[in-house]
Amino acid sequence: MQRKDYLLNPVEHMKIKAPLTVDQLMRQFSGSGSFSAGRLAVACDIYEKMLRDDECTVFLALSGAVIPAGLRALVSDLIRRRLIDVVVCTGASMVHDAIEAVGGRHYKGSWLVDDRELYKYHIFRIYDVLVTEEDYVRLDYQLAELYSKIADERKGEPLSSREFTWELGKYLSDPQSILRSAYEMNVPIFMPAARDSEFGFIHWLHSSQQNRKNTLCLDAFKEVPEICNICSQSPKNGMIVIGGGVPRNTVQSAALASKKGMDYAVVVTMDRPETGGLSGSTLKETISWGKVKDEADKVMVIGEATMVFPLMAASVLERLGEEFQRKPKTSTGEN
Amino acid sequence: MQRKDYLLNPVEHMKIKAPLTVDQLMRQFSGSGSFSAGRLAVACDIYEKMLRDDECTVFLALSGAVIPAGLRALVSDLIRRRLIDVVVCTGASMVHDAIEAVGGRHYKGSWLVDDRELYKYHIFRIYDVLVTEEDYVRLDYQLAELYSKIADERKGEPLSSREFTWELGKYLSDPQSILRSAYEMNVPIFMPAARDSEFGFIHWLHSSQQNRKNTLCLDAFKEVPEICNICSQSPKNGMIVIGGGVPRNTVQSAALASKKGMDYAVVVTMDRPETGGLSGSTLKETISWGKVKDEADKVMVIGEATMVFPLMAASVLERLGEEFQRKPKTSTGEN
Amino acid sequence: MQRKDYLLNPVEHMKIKAPLTVDQLMRQFSGSGSFSAGRLAVACDIYEKMLRDDECTVFLALSGAVIPAGLRALVSDLIRRRLIDVVVCTGASMVHDAIEAVGGRHYKGSWLVDDRELYKYHIFRIYDVLVTEEDYVRLDYQLAELYSKIADERKGEPLSSREFTWELGKYLSDPQSILRSAYEMNVPIFMPAARDSEFGFIHWLHSSQQNRKNTLCLDAFKEVPEICNICSQSPKNGMIVIGGGVPRNTVQSAALASKKGMDYAVVVTMDRPETGGLSGSTLKETISWGKVKDEADKVMVIGEATMVFPLMAASVLERLGEEFQRKPKTSTGEN
Amino acid sequence: MQRKDYLLNPVEHMKIKAPLTVDQLMRQFSGSGSFSAGRLAVACDIYEKMLRDDECTVFLALSGAVIPAGLRALVSDLIRRRLIDVVVCTGASMVHDAIEAVGGRHYKGSWLVDDRELYKYHIFRIYDVLVTEEDYVRLDYQLAELYSKIADERKGEPLSSREFTWELGKYLSDPQSILRSAYEMNVPIFMPAARDSEFGFIHWLHSSQQNRKNTLCLDAFKEVPEICNICSQSPKNGMIVIGGGVPRNTVQSAALASKKGMDYAVVVTMDRPETGGLSGSTLKETISWGKVKDEADKVMVIGEATMVFPLMAASVLERLGEEFQRKPKTSTGEN
Repeated sequence: MQRKDYLLNPVEHMKIKAPLTVDQLMRQFSGSGSFSAGRLAVACDIYEKMLRDDECTVFLALSGAVIPAGLRALVSDLIRRRLIDVVVCTGASMVHDAIEAVGGRHYKGSWLVDDRELYKYHIFRIYDVLVTEEDYVRLDYQLAELYSKIADERKGEPLSSREFTWELGKYLSDPQSILRSAYEMNVPIFMPAARDSEFGFIHWLHSSQQNRKNTLCLDAFKEVPEICNICSQSPKNGMIVIGGGVPRNTVQSAALASKKGMDYAVVVTMDRPETGGLSGSTLKETISWGKVKDEADKVMVIGEATMVFPLMAASVLERLGEEFQRKPKTSTGEN
Repeated sequence: MQRKDYLLNPVEHMKIKAPLTVDQLMRQFSGSGSFSAGRLAVACDIYEKMLRDDECTVFLALSGAVIPAGLRALVSDLIRRRLIDVVVCTGASMVHDAIEAVGGRHYKGSWLVDDRELYKYHIFRIYDVLVTEEDYVRLDYQLAELYSKIADERKGEPLSSREFTWELGKYLSDPQSILRSAYEMNVPIFMPAARDSEFGFIHWLHSSQQNRKNTLCLDAFKEVPEICNICSQSPKNGMIVIGGGVPRNTVQSAALASKKGMDYAVVVTMDRPETGGLSGSTLKETISWGKVKDEADKVMVIGEATMVFPLMAASVLERLGEEFQRKPKTSTGEN
Repeated sequence: MQRKDYLLNPVEHMKIKAPLTVDQLMRQFSGSGSFSAGRLAVACDIYEKMLRDDECTVFLALSGAVIPAGLRALVSDLIRRRLIDVVVCTGASMVHDAIEAVGGRHYKGSWLVDDRELYKYHIFRIYDVLVTEEDYVRLDYQLAELYSKIADERKGEPLSSREFTWELGKYLSDPQSILRSAYEMNVPIFMPAARDSEFGFIHWLHSSQQNRKNTLCLDAFKEVPEICNICSQSPKNGMIVIGGGVPRNTVQSAALASKKGMDYAVVVTMDRPETGGLSGSTLKETISWGKVKDEADKVMVIGEATMVFPLMAASVLERLGEEFQRKPKTSTGEN
Repeated sequence: MQRKDYLLNPVEHMKIKAPLTVDQLMRQFSGSGSFSAGRLAVACDIYEKMLRDDECTVFLALSGAVIPAGLRALVSDLIRRRLIDVVVCTGASMVHDAIEAVGGRHYKGSWLVDDRELYKYHIFRIYDVLVTEEDYVRLDYQLAELYSKIADERKGEPLSSREFTWELGKYLSDPQSILRSAYEMNVPIFMPAARDSEFGFIHWLHSSQQNRKNTLCLDAFKEVPEICNICSQSPKNGMIVIGGGVPRNTVQSAALASKKGMDYAVVVTMDRPETGGLSGSTLKETISWGKVKDEADKVMVIGEATMVFPLMAASVLERLGEEFQRKPKTSTGEN
């Protein structure tokens, strides 16, 4: 590179006039182009580009506790507007979704409360969000019955986690539920670590019931070709990662195993690379594996998702406009 | 607390319809009320409250490199609209401001560039922002002359850093400059570590010039009663902290030494408390010292300031409306 | 508390004379007692206490990439010395272990290398550790055959992840292997997200082979009662958590579901609580759930595990002495 | 690079036998060579190399609250053994040192205490370390008198912060004091932000005393050529940075302004680069400025200093042996 090539784009300082729409603010972030504001603006550009690219299947990898913290309706709405094609998430995320679908709630609290008192009151804390044990118990009993029903219908034939979430979505009637929305829109939800959540303990409850004919069996490996085939059959693939952990790894590994590599990648995380863990690993590192293509549009935003992801969504929805339509992805198949 | 007291405020899941103004989004964050989104919404409420409280003097503590990264015009505009009464910042922040005031620029770059090549080209990198050595040199020579002029006018009488920034603001004519805006609006700017910046090296240049009659002397301690008196004479005090370091410590210590304690406090940082450093210390900790009052409205937002602070500003400006007027604080005195 | 109660333990400043053994250094950390050094000293005390408590079952929750980064022999040795009773880990950790067991290696690299070149050379990067594609491929083919053999022996009867790792340990002959050591010492290894690793893709390879009679089935839920019963049958339980993610959640949930609550807890992580994710959540938060007891000995060390865990191990091994013996835990059952 | 060049150094897994000396453990870290353990091992190698290089002046940049947390004696001892040639630190670090030198103490506490109660008891909290207001007050009155004495001796002639710390060291008699040790060993201590600490408020106390003839004046800029000349006159320079902030920036800037560039660099920090702040900036970034040479031995250890720095010191002291002698640096001048 020549010296002058480094000096092509002066920072345009943000001008904050009120009122600004979210996307107008994002344009200011884009002009400035630095640090997290600049990265966030790039993330919006990439998400918009994914959505306008007819060939691209959009994966959402979801970890952490953003669902109880207020992003449930947002994810659900994005699914219903076909702005997400495939979800890969932790079991806990869908447990939180289901708790609300069967009438439970999450409550605003504080991280400074007396946890011994909460314990006494059978209230559980997730940083500054609270949830009651009774809301868990209500879910437990409803789903234990559902497990038995599914097991009988399938006669013990193992399900993949995708089939399992499809059954959950079929069962839950709450239209705001992520599981329900995905079921109605034929958006697959994978939960590679479904066992590591209340779904696992509900299974224990279900399997220890007397007079049970069949036991639900979740085949851990069955989903591997399912998700890889989605990548493989889609001309292009893009991912939006919230957090890290198993969901990020599963999506990236599907891109690798299907020998496609992601064409678009946005990662929103607070984790850092120096521990060597997958969650904080850079997108530069993914290139060595072929998980994300070298030439992909990609960016990592260092920030907390309850703040960053709604900003991205609001900005991109504003750009797309109400009339924007995306076609369902045939590659995500039917159940 | 009773059990039911913990369960008063269910999380209202964010509904992201487009277009949303920034403050409409913030209302969604507020309803959800959790994690960083919830904290950011509280931060906006507190900043609004500070501004509507006629008795409150608003301190901005500014560290890090947010000025070259795009926040220069924003800070300048807030000063001109009287939405900040006192600034405490690193020397580097005002060096970056002055570089642009005398015709220099910052440039959008990448953290993945070849730093050896930048070195060869005399281009300096600040994460993903670039600045040329020649822009520093231009500033050096202009300010070295200004130092000599000030020294002659003052006949070697020592200045406080507040007086020094007032002289800088008087000299610079760029209306977008933070230093100039503060000068025009009579907003004091303190730089407790002025020496730790190009201002220190300019002094070296200035003091080694031949035929110099007087040398500019910056009295490090002279500002201590100046800033404490502002706190002391103001019925209430509030602070917005960007980053941490010396600016945060100076503002908090002024509240302590003046035996006032902050009535309002917003801290935006990515630092964490476990190192024991001041930058990541919690607002809870400040209570033990009396730096912030126990009953103060206060919140710490874990996030990067180029993203968080414009969001706060846009939201609060929208709430206040164009006609909103704040009176100048007599306590900040004149020069 | 009285005022004087806060002032009982003055900081004793560390005196660093050389040579110091690791435990002598830890005693200096203990006297000082602050920040991460103090927390680390407490972590050593807790691990020692767990091991000297005949009633306590010690769980190791392992995530991140510490195995390829040099902790493989350490974990293996701890298992062989009966200083860990149960392992819960990511699939990737055991893939890394198995790669070396069948002759592969990990290599020291740098995070600043050209990842496009690595891609071209079929070398994968894990922060600053490198591993070749051919070492993965060798494992793939060996294990695909093993899967078929197991499936035939079990005639398609589903395995839990614990049974699966037992089969792996039985197959691998390398005495330094974690899987092998655990097999020989009858230490159960749980991999709740086994599917999210090369083990999942090996299954794809295995299941698509022609002339295959049976397919290996990993029942995701089968391990839930297995791990809960270990907690339940042990008079006391303790956990050492490296990182966070699914392993930490699984161990904590087992303590919750078995209505025991951990009696001892050490968490080593770089994650932070403000995202609301499980990985960075405080031990204080776990009390509300009953995952860890209020009265438990517990500490969270903010640090990277390749540095912290060997320090802990070296310090505790020094305290215990060579002659120290721990009995096998009958609660961990046999295969 | 050829493919084989990437695969030269297999990870040698750490073998933890007890007892291990700290340096024996560090050799294990070195063989493994990855993540933080590997970086720490490199940091020890670099510090050893600096000390064995007769041409190198060793700078210690010290920020954060490591002195009250237990590193006071360590820093003092390193100065007395001539293993540090120049100190650059925050004012607070030396305030903490001086508090103990005049009979005060720091106390081990917890970050979970009731800060309102501490406030009532006039006890201040620094994460999990406590200090009383009365220990501050004792220092205040002693030093206010000292200020007056110095001012009279100097007849108002301004001091640099280096001269100021020299006066403090001369006054304090505690041999364990860092200030005293540096005074005795002729090691200069720079405090570029001296004003931002109790030293500033003591000045206020001193300057408001009646019957005072002269007022102590700390010339903020006077130290700039002092520190730059040290760099400039030394054939080689090395830095060990604890934390970041003003001390790191001052040391790096001295290397830049003296057109030398650091030949050795170790940074120990928990800050991250994405905020753009100096504290978390990478050593790669410093190359663009010429603050650290491209060819320098350099490493950044992501970890908390109360844990990392004693490890480094213990390991290097063990390598050097008791008989090791370093010559005083003539470049650091006399007072």
